[in-house]
Amino acid sequence: MSGLSFAITLPTWVRSVIDFDQVYESDEDKMDLANALAMGNVAHQTGGPFGAAIFEEATHRLIAPGVNLVVPQNNPTAHAEIVAMGLAGELLGRYDIGDDGTKPAVLAASTEPCAMCLGAVPWSGVSRLIIGARDVDARNVGFDEGDKPADWIVSLEARGITVRQDVQRPQSVLVLNSYLSSGGEIYNTDGGADDA
Amino acid sequence: MSGLSFAITLPTWVRSVIDFDQVYESDEDKMDLANALAMGNVAHQTGGPFGAAIFEEATHRLIAPGVNLVVPQNNPTAHAEIVAMGLAGELLGRYDIGDDGTKPAVLAASTEPCAMCLGAVPWSGVSRLIIGARDVDARNVGFDEGDKPADWIVSLEARGITVRQDVQRPQSVLVLNSYLSSGGEIYNTDGGADDA
Repeated sequence: MSGLSFAITLPTWVRSVIDFDQVYESDEDKMDLANALAMGNVAHQTGGPFGAAIFEEATHRLIAPGVNLVVPQNNPTAHAEIVAMGLAGELLGRYDIGDDGTKPAVLAASTEPCAMCLGAVPWSGVSRLIIGARDVDARNVGFDEGDKPADWIVSLEARGITVRQDVQRPQSVLVLNSYLSSGGEIYNTDGGADDA
Repeated sequence: MSGLSFAITLPTWVRSVIDFDQVYESDEDKMDLANALAMGNVAHQTGGPFGAAIFEEATHRLIAPGVNLVVPQNNPTAHAEIVAMGLAGELLGRYDIGDDGTKPAVLAASTEPCAMCLGAVPWSGVSRLIIGARDVDARNVGFDEGDKPADWIVSLEARGITVRQDVQRPQSVLVLNSYLSSGGEIYNTDGGADDA
């Protein structure tokens, strides 16, 4: 062993929110879980107000949850989507969550992914992305979403990844506002706005 | 503990390439290390032909190395830059590598970062990015760099992050070609080209 290692570990409370045996049938069911993860992260003060969850399309079952863990785990890339993708790979035993298209998977993100997380979507092997709050909703409460290609939906769809926006958006926005009103820690690295 | 966790661990051979006490004074010295990490990853068959290293600007000392570990560690986001950023956060005990600008740091990437890794750069707190091989060099050997904003250098510089390209580029290209000629595993998730 090199001794050069780091781990990402989801908080204990996550177990009380998720159910690997549940059928999360509709997109709204799937987003409700992503929002519950985001809200749990605010309530337990374990990170930023962002949740994500990856589901198998065929069974509607949860593959992996994710929450933002940047501050508590000292990791600038530990956004909810990156955490969910890494955990999905770990639990499935493969880096390609969709298994070369044979096991289609969908990523639910409580807020539109930032530039980094959008860039990760094609690498993860998911074939569908559903989004709660919009980029502007995150910016409205002070989070920085980064510099995205202007036509990112077209780019993802050209890769065979479909995008659906505004799924349970009001509930997702509520989580962002809750974080703000609860005085959640503001984190940033570049002296500018905060990272989503 | 939730039991929901994953780790990223650098291969043992990395210890023989890096030296935390060495002064990597010039940009070329810094890139030589990123290229040595990339070449080591090819030679030891521990991942894709990409290396990265983060240095403290004031001392020119290594903060953290990274190599591409997507395939061996079943993690679609384990690109060299993401690995180096996560390890830097772990070793420094903070998510903001530059510590709010008081400890400027530079990221050396053996190949121009993909869309995901470019998106991660502002979140990491580094204030400078130096690059070996260009996007086109990676694409020439079959790797997919993702969909980047057309003006990504302008965008980074607007955030106070300076970019220098073509540092030891021929050596970085040599690593890419070595991977190709050694029959390195081709990995992809979207049925298209491969991820850089």
